Amino acid sequence: MNAPILVINPNSSSQVTADMDRALDPLRGPGDPAIECLTLAEGPPGIETQRQVDEVVAPLCRLVEGRKDKAAAFVIACFSDPGLHALREVTARPVLGIAESGLLTALTLGQSVGIVSILAGSIPRHRRMIRALGIDSRLAGDRPLGLGVAELAAEAVTLERMIEVGGRLREADGADVLVLGCAGMARYRARLEQALSLPVVDPTQAAVGMAITAVRLGYGGGPHASTGSA
Amino acid sequence: MNAPILVINPNSSSQVTADMDRALDPLRGPGDPAIECLTLAEGPPGIETQRQVDEVVAPLCRLVEGRKDKAAAFVIACFSDPGLHALREVTARPVLGIAESGLLTALTLGQSVGIVSILAGSIPRHRRMIRALGIDSRLAGDRPLGLGVAELAAEAVTLERMIEVGGRLREADGADVLVLGCAGMARYRARLEQALSLPVVDPTQAAVGMAITAVRLGYGGGPHASTGSA
Amino acid sequence: MNAPILVINPNSSSQVTADMDRALDPLRGPGDPAIECLTLAEGPPGIETQRQVDEVVAPLCRLVEGRKDKAAAFVIACFSDPGLHALREVTARPVLGIAESGLLTALTLGQSVGIVSILAGSIPRHRRMIRALGIDSRLAGDRPLGLGVAELAAEAVTLERMIEVGGRLREADGADVLVLGCAGMARYRARLEQALSLPVVDPTQAAVGMAITAVRLGYGGGPHASTGSA
Amino acid sequence: MNAPILVINPNSSSQVTADMDRALDPLRGPGDPAIECLTLAEGPPGIETQRQVDEVVAPLCRLVEGRKDKAAAFVIACFSDPGLHALREVTARPVLGIAESGLLTALTLGQSVGIVSILAGSIPRHRRMIRALGIDSRLAGDRPLGLGVAELAAEAVTLERMIEVGGRLREADGADVLVLGCAGMARYRARLEQALSLPVVDPTQAAVGMAITAVRLGYGGGPHASTGSA
Amino acid sequence: MNAPILVINPNSSSQVTADMDRALDPLRGPGDPAIECLTLAEGPPGIETQRQVDEVVAPLCRLVEGRKDKAAAFVIACFSDPGLHALREVTARPVLGIAESGLLTALTLGQSVGIVSILAGSIPRHRRMIRALGIDSRLAGDRPLGLGVAELAAEAVTLERMIEVGGRLREADGADVLVLGCAGMARYRARLEQALSLPVVDPTQAAVGMAITAVRLGYGGGPHASTGSA
Amino acid sequence: MNAPILVINPNSSSQVTADMDRALDPLRGPGDPAIECLTLAEGPPGIETQRQVDEVVAPLCRLVEGRKDKAAAFVIACFSDPGLHALREVTARPVLGIAESGLLTALTLGQSVGIVSILAGSIPRHRRMIRALGIDSRLAGDRPLGLGVAELAAEAVTLERMIEVGGRLREADGADVLVLGCAGMARYRARLEQALSLPVVDPTQAAVGMAITAVRLGYGGGPHASTGSA
Repeated sequence: MNAPILVINPNSSSQVTADMDRALDPLRGPGDPAIECLTLAEGPPGIETQRQVDEVVAPLCRLVEGRKDKAAAFVIACFSDPGLHALREVTARPVLGIAESGLLTALTLGQSVGIVSILAGSIPRHRRMIRALGIDSRLAGDRPLGLGVAELAAEAVTLERMIEVGGRLREADGADVLVLGCAGMARYRARLEQALSLPVVDPTQAAVGMAITAVRLGYGGGPHASTGSA
Repeated sequence: MNAPILVINPNSSSQVTADMDRALDPLRGPGDPAIECLTLAEGPPGIETQRQVDEVVAPLCRLVEGRKDKAAAFVIACFSDPGLHALREVTARPVLGIAESGLLTALTLGQSVGIVSILAGSIPRHRRMIRALGIDSRLAGDRPLGLGVAELAAEAVTLERMIEVGGRLREADGADVLVLGCAGMARYRARLEQALSLPVVDPTQAAVGMAITAVRLGYGGGPHASTGSA
Repeated sequence: MNAPILVINPNSSSQVTADMDRALDPLRGPGDPAIECLTLAEGPPGIETQRQVDEVVAPLCRLVEGRKDKAAAFVIACFSDPGLHALREVTARPVLGIAESGLLTALTLGQSVGIVSILAGSIPRHRRMIRALGIDSRLAGDRPLGLGVAELAAEAVTLERMIEVGGRLREADGADVLVLGCAGMARYRARLEQALSLPVVDPTQAAVGMAITAVRLGYGGGPHASTGSA
Repeated sequence: MNAPILVINPNSSSQVTADMDRALDPLRGPGDPAIECLTLAEGPPGIETQRQVDEVVAPLCRLVEGRKDKAAAFVIACFSDPGLHALREVTARPVLGIAESGLLTALTLGQSVGIVSILAGSIPRHRRMIRALGIDSRLAGDRPLGLGVAELAAEAVTLERMIEVGGRLREADGADVLVLGCAGMARYRARLEQALSLPVVDPTQAAVGMAITAVRLGYGGGPHASTGSA
Repeated sequence: MNAPILVINPNSSSQVTADMDRALDPLRGPGDPAIECLTLAEGPPGIETQRQVDEVVAPLCRLVEGRKDKAAAFVIACFSDPGLHALREVTARPVLGIAESGLLTALTLGQSVGIVSILAGSIPRHRRMIRALGIDSRLAGDRPLGLGVAELAAEAVTLERMIEVGGRLREADGADVLVLGCAGMARYRARLEQALSLPVVDPTQAAVGMAITAVRLGYGGGPHASTGSA
Repeated sequence: MNAPILVINPNSSSQVTADMDRALDPLRGPGDPAIECLTLAEGPPGIETQRQVDEVVAPLCRLVEGRKDKAAAFVIACFSDPGLHALREVTARPVLGIAESGLLTALTLGQSVGIVSILAGSIPRHRRMIRALGIDSRLAGDRPLGLGVAELAAEAVTLERMIEVGGRLREADGADVLVLGCAGMARYRARLEQALSLPVVDPTQAAVGMAITAVRLGYGGGPHASTGSA
């Protein structure tokens, strides 16, 4: 099991890739597949529209196709899960999307999930995705930070706004678990949990955790050792 | 992080415990917490009724309470998830149920989930659980093997019947992923996948995979390292 | 049909038992089975956690088993319906839970149900139960009084807070019928109805009403007279 | 509380009225309001279309309006619940529909409800009603007897067909409780229960049971005695 | 195909009929069936209760029956869709309801639908209808203008209130498309769209658009030309 | 309003384009916008996988962007609605997808929708789409023809198989309206309706009908004449 898990950031921001890479350290153990993060060269600087979601699928498919014998699993690190179902056709290796993984993980940590999104414009897109997942009765709310790029660069401002938005998800919407609706925000996770006394899921971490398990258990059609004796 | 993950078989059949223990070998890596399987002494020989589900909760709580500083996480290895939400109150460590974990994992492997159950009498109980989980729009069907204890002991008969039931879940109900509705059936997983060309989830494996991730990422309120720098 | 309907308060507060007993007087007619309220000796002073819900099931089962030939029906008088499905296995006599009965009754009195709960911590538990019942599209909201034990003892304070919470369920959440999310609050029912001009369901009353009907009609497998001629 | 409960058969078949009247005997106790069954003179011989459902509402409203001070509650005895919500505007007395009451009662007796209907043409109408009730996740199936009037008159033929249809609801659809999708079939209830080992709800009985409780507890806005002291 | 589309205003206000008639001009093309609006003489001045909804069905059926060979399609122009399913039995011509058509059209213009209703008392009725339609997961909210008849006559006051209510549907409820919950308000549509930057559906326009298509495509059982060659 | 409605066939089969073009003749009236059908040059011969669905979005966006001032509306003529939400960002003109339009139209013609699909492999993709639409409680079933390309060319064989599959949707699944799950099958519509006595929706026709209405009513943000006076 020497092939790595490839975590693909479909936007072209290598800063986001670096941030998520650091956040995955707790999942790097001596017996685990390597976790390799890479940036989709063809991606836009950020994925903010459905068109951008859809248009990265073709380069994602090419990338995965080119690596399919050299990776143990693939993680798509954008909260709109671009190409998730297409990539599952391209390769028999496990493919995890961070929204799907993050939301399903949250279902094990609370009854009503709140999503901390960056942009108001993403919320209708999330709604479609959550209905398609069939879990909309578990959604408490989805609220945007509404910060511009400049403000997002300022860590203290961002954290303060996350606490405010998370607090409204908890108080007004009844959320008892939060999911960060974006890759690359894991650095705030511990502080947000502490401030709000709620579990917070970083979706990229959740997806990579699921990918490790999937590799070990042979999900996705590859040869697997489902029992000690097999 | 030297404390083990405790996998508790709430019935008193040590054969089932031994079977699941063997099936967890793919999840035992050098950097992982140990996985320790144990049998609930107070449990009935098998859990077949709602009363049995409910009555093992008290001894499960005592067991978990007694071990809560000496375990990294807990897995309840019965497809009715007895005491899942009670145990989450008893300890801040992650607690996973095999039904919840197995079903959520299946959602990442197909669109419509089929459950291979042992007894017809469990199906109404599963229905309540699946509605409580909020994922009933993803259920294709739940069909029982309908085998007696004697027949379950005969591996060839059981496998043949699993293939028959799984085939009906696929053909008549439209399932594109199966979940074994019972602990201790992992030995059939690979053969069933091969016979039906469908992914098959062993719920105990799925839950222990989720538990390992939860320990590494610090879900459940314990101290955690959510980023490389924290 | 001289056997009584047993209404079991699963907490050990005999004050709560006495309160509900008084509230059942309108259901005591000359031709009805007697209604006998009793306190579960093994119960905790109040049921506030899932663990307490689950741990009263074993003594409830023993109690019902011991009385099953001497009762016409059983009512479990705690809004978490502890052991409801287990008890239905223990006896062929009708078993009603006050949450199930209270919520279903409310569906005949309005389109959108508001629940007046005591504690915020119960709400996620209620959510699971309501999803399991399959009626979550009829829930308007569930809001807690958030009063401590001392305050609950003060009737005027409690009523004032109930009117405030009920008013928010009506105004902010759109409830057109309310259910008291607790046994033993029937004394406030008429005043709350009057203050809010909404129907208010006391769940213990609702469940006992359903139990009387179930006894008369022979639900639950006992011998019954389904037509005048049979 | 000397006013009777009026059970209105909205079709003009006095035979159906007589049949339901007999089936209500178990609900006639010394302390209960009288139960008076009457036939809507303006009704069609049978209610088989949505138009017939809608067109009986006007005469039903006039009838209820004329009796509203002389009845304790009203039951509409047609499985399409004609005028249910209109009548609730006309009178503050409780108004129960047999479909709503029968289906909600069934939710307390099983997890998955099967409906034994008379005509295939009624099933789309039932679907709308069940979705409007918000309980469609609890419906196992709805199957018609498909018998003509002549055959329905032959009791043995009808019973045999009911057992066959009920058996398919149980086997193919997974129903664990049945509701008779029609007024006036209560005479078959006990035999169908016995043949299928499933609880069977006669909806008129269920609705009258709910009406008695509603009268005693003062639902619907009338003066009521919600506690012993009030 | 010279028969007109009949748009029936089930209330007796000819002013409302005249308003909707004017709003349908964009749908009157040289190749289209004529659109004829008429007032139901037997209707109440306004339809505000379920009883009124139900009681106009009989005269609607008579009207449609009398015209069924002389109309290409029928539109029922009241947001409670009175008699929609009954009329579909009366005639094989297409019958459209403005609520059904308006809401389904809105699903093509946004993810979450907000309804601008006139009266608070209509909202529970709308809830039942939306659940019966099976689209309640797409409803963002339903808020009333709460204006009396006198105020509704004042156009500036009404528009101001519509903008306020629509703004709350957008901000508090997350609506990204609005439906006017009433016939005869089309005159405000363009101004409301402009003020809120949201698409706004006038349901009568939407239903007549659907009716024209239905006539051209031969829905509803009439003879049709489904392909160019047929 | 001289700009045409562009109907884009996202696969490169000009035969399919020609077939749908012919089927749109009933929607070509003297006052209507022209309907222009075109084939996406970059499309695959047929769209059978999620990857193909996703990969046509980029060329679709370019095509629509290039024509956005020269078209009154756009229809995407593939039953997977590729790029539907992306295209709605690209242009303010109405964009309709044939699956969305066909399914919503079917909701006005029956209670339970059956889909006649070509390939079994498309059904999980349809399931996601239908859940995302939020109308899964209205789906009766989705069954494939399971015919190879050669067989699809033989009209008699295809029709026979459609009648067989449609018959099972009606009998076994309870469908009372059918949707053709593919573009370019309109030629079978009338014969299928006649054979099964059920309304059948050709989704391309339905979508173009909706597009004509959308153009006339000014949906999608363009300048519009919502009332006769504006």
